[in-house]
Amino acid sequence: MRKGLLFIISGPAGSGKGTVVNRLLSAHPELKLSISATTRQPRPGEVDGVHYYYISKDEFEERIASGKMLEYTTYSGNYYGTPEKEVRQALENGQDIILEIEVDGAMQIKERIEGAVAIMLTPPNSQVLEARLRGRGTETDEVIKWRLARAKEEVKLLPKYDYLVINEDNRSDECAQMVYSIILAEHQKSIHNRSIIEKFI
Amino acid sequence: MRKGLLFIISGPAGSGKGTVVNRLLSAHPELKLSISATTRQPRPGEVDGVHYYYISKDEFEERIASGKMLEYTTYSGNYYGTPEKEVRQALENGQDIILEIEVDGAMQIKERIEGAVAIMLTPPNSQVLEARLRGRGTETDEVIKWRLARAKEEVKLLPKYDYLVINEDNRSDECAQMVYSIILAEHQKSIHNRSIIEKFI
Repeated sequence: MRKGLLFIISGPAGSGKGTVVNRLLSAHPELKLSISATTRQPRPGEVDGVHYYYISKDEFEERIASGKMLEYTTYSGNYYGTPEKEVRQALENGQDIILEIEVDGAMQIKERIEGAVAIMLTPPNSQVLEARLRGRGTETDEVIKWRLARAKEEVKLLPKYDYLVINEDNRSDECAQMVYSIILAEHQKSIHNRSIIEKFI
Repeated sequence: MRKGLLFIISGPAGSGKGTVVNRLLSAHPELKLSISATTRQPRPGEVDGVHYYYISKDEFEERIASGKMLEYTTYSGNYYGTPEKEVRQALENGQDIILEIEVDGAMQIKERIEGAVAIMLTPPNSQVLEARLRGRGTETDEVIKWRLARAKEEVKLLPKYDYLVINEDNRSDECAQMVYSIILAEHQKSIHNRSIIEKFI
């Protein structure tokens, strides 16, 4: 059976990666977003194993200690992380997984999951990024400057990524299609298809 | 400017690569088939630089001696080969090139043109291949056996290729689309897109 592949999508705030990932998932429902584990309480309507895996703080810390989290972070006093077992099981079952994640976590996961494919999504340049951030109208000058500086640092990590997809304004659909082409192509790599040789012997 | 990429397509006789390449080129006229050099005379209607580069035997042999042919072969007393200069010039001009070629030549070119992408096209298995070869009704049992044995040797070289695309019966269009996805994905590789970093500095 065809094994699943893990696709990491990351990019600076303002790259539009959330929209691109949503378009990708709705156009290709066979792809699944990785489900994070968290120690925060489920909100009304949230379902364990669908929105998050809800686990206790003790269990989360035990999983960190025993190396069972592919990556994790804290936010507002709660842990959020990517559980290794669930990801590996889904891949074994042939499920392709999309993981939207920051650059630090992306690099950690790429080291631990062999064959993980890292795709960086960026705006075409820092001017467009700045215009997008200002266009939101929700962030102070200081925050915008910080985000631009951070974007610069993130984009410098491109050589550690496998692919770059540039998200021009109002092109989320084309961008999602391009990511899908990358997903298709990755499955055709000869390293994943050695079993054809047996079919000729 | 975006540089062109060279895509090598090879596969056993009966893989249907000729049809797939034709579909690919007619759906995506921006792609160009590599033009071979030959010492045979132009036939009526053939145009130099379009169907072939027609050159003299002396010139062809001089080019072989000075390493200016990426690969070559002889057939019916004439030379046929892939001229290096024309391929490199087209790539520099941003032109993607498709090269349909046998496995031996494919490996020679992959060594000489950095970043050349090798795609192997095969039938799903040797039974389908045999049925296709017999279906042609033009080849003796002996020739068919020889082709099957040769296909087996060719498919064994898959690990030297970058990608495998399986051509099921009557699926040339899907196959051409898959090759096109590979072409799109290859252009997104981070190694070809480092210039984005400057746009954030």
